[in-house]
Amino acid sequence: MLKGIDPLLTPELLKVLCEMGHGDEVVFADANFTAETLGRGKHVIRLPGVDLARACAALLSVFPLDAAVARPVAYMKVCESPVGFVSGVQQAVLALLARTSAIAPAQCEALDRFAFYERVQLAYAIVQTGERQPWANFSFKKGVIADALT
Amino acid sequence: MLKGIDPLLTPELLKVLCEMGHGDEVVFADANFTAETLGRGKHVIRLPGVDLARACAALLSVFPLDAAVARPVAYMKVCESPVGFVSGVQQAVLALLARTSAIAPAQCEALDRFAFYERVQLAYAIVQTGERQPWANFSFKKGVIADALT
Repeated sequence: MLKGIDPLLTPELLKVLCEMGHGDEVVFADANFTAETLGRGKHVIRLPGVDLARACAALLSVFPLDAAVARPVAYMKVCESPVGFVSGVQQAVLALLARTSAIAPAQCEALDRFAFYERVQLAYAIVQTGERQPWANFSFKKGVIADALT
Repeated sequence: MLKGIDPLLTPELLKVLCEMGHGDEVVFADANFTAETLGRGKHVIRLPGVDLARACAALLSVFPLDAAVARPVAYMKVCESPVGFVSGVQQAVLALLARTSAIAPAQCEALDRFAFYERVQLAYAIVQTGERQPWANFSFKKGVIADALT
C-alpha cells in the first residue's frame, strides 16, 4: 500500500505501467481472454475477482492517455451484434474515460475480434481482470507527462 | 511517467516501496554508503545525481510512516561531532519529515555508525542516492493505510 495510489495497482502492475513509454499500449481484458497465448513475451498480470470497469478506474488514476493520436483507446466489438451496439461493461468503461480522462466515445475504436488480436500483438502488457461479461477487452495507448517547451 | 507520481520513483523503486508491508524499513543513503555490501540479499536501487533531501521528498510523497512506534525514522549521527550536532542535509530531511509527515525530530533516532549498520541489516531495501555530503543516511519504517475498524 502507498499513499494516494489505488491498491489495485499491485507492485508488479505499478512497475509495468511506470516502465511504459509514449505510444506503448496496455490491454485490460476479461477473464476469458487468451491473455497468456497472446501475451507470450509480454507482461501478463492478473487481477482476479476485479471487474473491468473497476480495474480501468485504477489504471486511469495514474495512466496518461495519448493526446497525439485521434483514438488512444480501442476495444473489442461484441461479435455479430447490431451496428453501434455497446454492452453494459463497455458503456461503463467509455463513461469512465469521458469522466476521468476527457476521452469521448468517438476517440475509442471498436474493433472486430481478430483485428483486436492484431492490436494486442503490439501491446507491452496484458492485465487479465476477473470480468465475467464477454467482449470486455480494451487497449489503452500511453501519453506523456511533460513540461512545456521553452 | 505516471500521473501524480514523482518521476524519481522509478518503476523498480515504486515496485519495491509498494511491496513493503507494515514494519518493513527502507534506507535512503548517501553516495559513499556501503549499499551493496550491507544490501546483500536485499533490493539495492540507485538514484545517481539526486541529493538525499530530494530523494526523501519523493519517498514521502507515497510512503506512510509507522505510527505504531515511537520513532519510525533513524539516521546515522555525524561521527565525533558535538552532542546534538545535526548536519545541513540531516536538518533538511528532518524539516521535510516535519512538514510532510508530521514527524517531529524527537521521533527520529540518531544512531552511531555501527548501530546504524545493525539497523540496516533489517531493511527490505536500500536506495543509494547521489548525495555528496557524508553521514547522510536515513532509515524509514513503513506504516499502514487502513480503513477504520468496524
